[in-house]
Amino acid sequence: MPQYNAPLADFQFLLKDWLKIDEHYANVDAQGMDSELVLEIIGQGAKFAEEVVAPLNREGDEQGCTLTDGKVKTPDGFAQAYHEYIANGWNAMLGNPEFDGQDLPYSAAVPVHEMLNSANLSWRLTTMLTESAVLAVDKHATDTLKQTYLAKLISGEWTGTMNLTEPHAGTDLALLNTKAQPQSDGSYLITGNKIFITGGDHDWTDNIIHLVLARLPDAPAGVKGISLFLVPKFLVDDSGQPGEANKLSVGSIEKKMGIKASPTCVMNYDGAKGYLVGEENKGLACMFTMMNDARFQVGLQGLGTCEASFQGAVSYARERLQSRSPTGPKQPEAKADSLMHQPDVRKMLLTQKAFTEGCRALSLLYAQQMDIEKYTNDERKHDAEQVIAFLTPICKGFMTDIATEVTNLGIQVYGGHGYVREWGMEQLVRDTRIAQLYEGTNGIQAADLIGRKLTRDGGKMLGKTVAMLAERIKQMTDAEKRQQATDLLKEFEQSSTALLGREPNDIAAAATDYLHYSAYIILGILWLDMASSAQASGNELIAKGKQNTCAFYIKRLLPRKDLHKQVIHSRSDDVLNVADQEFDYV
Amino acid sequence: MPQYNAPLADFQFLLKDWLKIDEHYANVDAQGMDSELVLEIIGQGAKFAEEVVAPLNREGDEQGCTLTDGKVKTPDGFAQAYHEYIANGWNAMLGNPEFDGQDLPYSAAVPVHEMLNSANLSWRLTTMLTESAVLAVDKHATDTLKQTYLAKLISGEWTGTMNLTEPHAGTDLALLNTKAQPQSDGSYLITGNKIFITGGDHDWTDNIIHLVLARLPDAPAGVKGISLFLVPKFLVDDSGQPGEANKLSVGSIEKKMGIKASPTCVMNYDGAKGYLVGEENKGLACMFTMMNDARFQVGLQGLGTCEASFQGAVSYARERLQSRSPTGPKQPEAKADSLMHQPDVRKMLLTQKAFTEGCRALSLLYAQQMDIEKYTNDERKHDAEQVIAFLTPICKGFMTDIATEVTNLGIQVYGGHGYVREWGMEQLVRDTRIAQLYEGTNGIQAADLIGRKLTRDGGKMLGKTVAMLAERIKQMTDAEKRQQATDLLKEFEQSSTALLGREPNDIAAAATDYLHYSAYIILGILWLDMASSAQASGNELIAKGKQNTCAFYIKRLLPRKDLHKQVIHSRSDDVLNVADQEFDYV
Repeated sequence: MPQYNAPLADFQFLLKDWLKIDEHYANVDAQGMDSELVLEIIGQGAKFAEEVVAPLNREGDEQGCTLTDGKVKTPDGFAQAYHEYIANGWNAMLGNPEFDGQDLPYSAAVPVHEMLNSANLSWRLTTMLTESAVLAVDKHATDTLKQTYLAKLISGEWTGTMNLTEPHAGTDLALLNTKAQPQSDGSYLITGNKIFITGGDHDWTDNIIHLVLARLPDAPAGVKGISLFLVPKFLVDDSGQPGEANKLSVGSIEKKMGIKASPTCVMNYDGAKGYLVGEENKGLACMFTMMNDARFQVGLQGLGTCEASFQGAVSYARERLQSRSPTGPKQPEAKADSLMHQPDVRKMLLTQKAFTEGCRALSLLYAQQMDIEKYTNDERKHDAEQVIAFLTPICKGFMTDIATEVTNLGIQVYGGHGYVREWGMEQLVRDTRIAQLYEGTNGIQAADLIGRKLTRDGGKMLGKTVAMLAERIKQMTDAEKRQQATDLLKEFEQSSTALLGREPNDIAAAATDYLHYSAYIILGILWLDMASSAQASGNELIAKGKQNTCAFYIKRLLPRKDLHKQVIHSRSDDVLNVADQEFDYV
Repeated sequence: MPQYNAPLADFQFLLKDWLKIDEHYANVDAQGMDSELVLEIIGQGAKFAEEVVAPLNREGDEQGCTLTDGKVKTPDGFAQAYHEYIANGWNAMLGNPEFDGQDLPYSAAVPVHEMLNSANLSWRLTTMLTESAVLAVDKHATDTLKQTYLAKLISGEWTGTMNLTEPHAGTDLALLNTKAQPQSDGSYLITGNKIFITGGDHDWTDNIIHLVLARLPDAPAGVKGISLFLVPKFLVDDSGQPGEANKLSVGSIEKKMGIKASPTCVMNYDGAKGYLVGEENKGLACMFTMMNDARFQVGLQGLGTCEASFQGAVSYARERLQSRSPTGPKQPEAKADSLMHQPDVRKMLLTQKAFTEGCRALSLLYAQQMDIEKYTNDERKHDAEQVIAFLTPICKGFMTDIATEVTNLGIQVYGGHGYVREWGMEQLVRDTRIAQLYEGTNGIQAADLIGRKLTRDGGKMLGKTVAMLAERIKQMTDAEKRQQATDLLKEFEQSSTALLGREPNDIAAAATDYLHYSAYIILGILWLDMASSAQASGNELIAKGKQNTCAFYIKRLLPRKDLHKQVIHSRSDDVLNVADQEFDYV
């Protein structure tokens, strides 16, 4: 597996020159933050990702996780890397300072998270889920619960899990039937089976805090009868230490396509003691407060694997000597030219590069909006919330769909060797594939975007997003690119608005195409924007690289939007007219 | 894993009503062949694929192959299924009757091969490679070699392998350096290492016949100095039985992304005795005589996995109850509607269906051309050869690229469950991924199509292919669809001709897009053609299903051609201008 090198030069360009992060921090009054500090944090994160986590990735996939006597063992070195991670405070980056969190801006944390995903996706997952649990507990739990659990979850002394899915209830949580029986002491006894629980058990910490959706005995049917409970693996005694084992167990660990070093558990709750988080029957709302964050984080997983695959492919294309270029020998002293001289291979590499760097720009733009939401308290906060809500399904859906394309290109550049496990390229395909499925399948993301975010909202979130992008475009210095970006944005607004008021089936049949259409347009605008400001970086390589990659994106990848545009404005009759029996002929 | 059900109704429609196979057999004078016999053969093949081979597929992936004391063990049941296969004569379908082959038309064998690929791709591979070896030996070996080896390879008593790739020589066979030392008895001693050898060893038969590319001591450099040798695992004694072990061994078996039940071997030849096949230094030409067949067979692997994934997805979408349709409950008696009522899911299923059935039509059209090549000896034979040469890279490249898309959709329909191994949907993605890589990567297929087949040939093969399609279109009964197909074909011819004489780098950068462009157009024509003749089947389900799927293909999938068309006619400057250092920023 090729060495992972954190893309520090790109982070520096994007944060300092493109996002103008110093102005941004001044605008939102993020005290003590500046580009120097952020780049220092990212540099330290890069070292950790490159030196501690990345070397465990390939062997972790081979070893996988095992379940023996009800206990999960993770691959060699995983627990130690985790202990180093929390010792260095990485788990606490975004945490509430009242509970020893560092309260950093998202623009500092997002690059670190991207790098962890590139280095070792399996290893990253448990810490990501813990961050989600922190958000839920911080926002919704009682002070008593917070005093006992929050600081330990923020530091990483204990990890957290999210328990939503049941065998018959995935997308449709209305169907879940795990039970919560109220007890006289104010606690509840939780009984039921949950599946797909990331980090449901492991050998990293001496306690694990499960957040579990369940129903009270008198709860209304459907999603309005779901409550959220905090269920520790070990009950915490008066001194705050893990004591008696709670009545829960790991039924099995799933055998999966990838992320094999991440323990995905079937959890059995057999009258386990739990504590209500938030109000009764409002559990789904509690979950939704962290949904944007979790979905964006999954998008980042796609980005992380794109970068890793791109790096692997470039290094192989440089080294592998095979055949001659179409116009004759380019390395006449060698027995053959490197793959870099094959236009078809260059096209694959540029496709990887354009999507990876485009998605990175999108992720940092999103992080900037998260910062605004965090640090401001006026209209800007409200606007940022609207933009975040609109961009979340795009980030999650597109960055993970494109990761499957980009990592498959990584295999293709290697030829047959890409199919052999030791090179690590096929692992990236297997690992990243989950990201299209969990935290809501990408079909659900598309439905969320075109339904809740666009049409049911009457286009208001769209309007805020368009305004934010228009503001960026206004600042572009290159007049020609500014005009191109303006035209793209106008087209996007018109095509989107045309969907308002459409018939529900037409909307549903257009959903995935609309998500991809939105992403190709937005990435096009961001590429023009990056190319326009690349000269300012003072880095000749960045300046030319961004210009050339922008040209490639505009010419060979952006045209995909037209395909999606054509499809989203068509009626759904072709999809609906097919009778059930016509799907196969028996 | 869902039960595999052979698509017999579709085979019947395509062969009888669409290809009009009885007329075809009469035209080419294929004596004794008619639709009844062909459908009987396919029916028997279906039983074998469904009942014997398919049940071994899931467990075969889990067990994989092992190498102990230099011997490969395949998964439980694999050897027994093979013995049943050869006992029933399946291996001999296409073989030369002088050596006990059945000499069947390709139109009978191709459906059987598709079904075997659907049922168990790993299991199928060794038999496919044996068929390739049969072609090479039959066409190029001396009578003495044929007497010893050919009947046993045709019957399957022994299997065959193809040894081309070396660690540093994949696409570029000019670089290979396995040595062949002539001996006084007319044999040669072969020394070198070969990788990626499918079926290099196994526990199915008492001998294995390796076909190995190597260089004579005085051979010219490059591809004009490569010879082909037959190297048996066990030297054959005078009675025709395997005797002394030859000096060759299995170095290791590759750990791969998929097709884990197929032993992919590193082979070491340490002065192994071999026999020249064909002329000295003409080994590559001998290999190329079977290249069309082998590449088409790999395309069929893509098709096979598409069908298996489609079936799995449809059965799950019918059973899985989750949420309600966008326009309200469709199964009000149930707790939720089936996934079939979600337009986004229907779109995924229809995409799978349109590509699977479209590729099946293409595969049978190709088989028909192979029949013409086989049975005629006049101008028709020459025309068919040209058409086959043009269609081969399209079949190989497109059917395998699209298989990765289609099988990934199969996972997506299952949501998180698609990522869990026991369902079998992710195995199809892993298994089919190799097909984009071997027998020439799909980049090589694209270069072959746009280079050797289109531009260097001056458009003659294109012309024959267009003429063949025009002849089909002329027979279409539906006037509107006939016009649509005519327009598509005209566009295809014009876009293709416009590429003649273009600069080599522009051609190379357009290659993959041209291959996909060609395939989307051809599938469009075939869908219009199928929809036009579906009424004639007398099967209402087929009639409506083909009409509706055609409408879906034309509206939602065919527009992809426009994207590719736009790209193929652009210059390659955007691909070439990027300096090597701009590919990443360090």
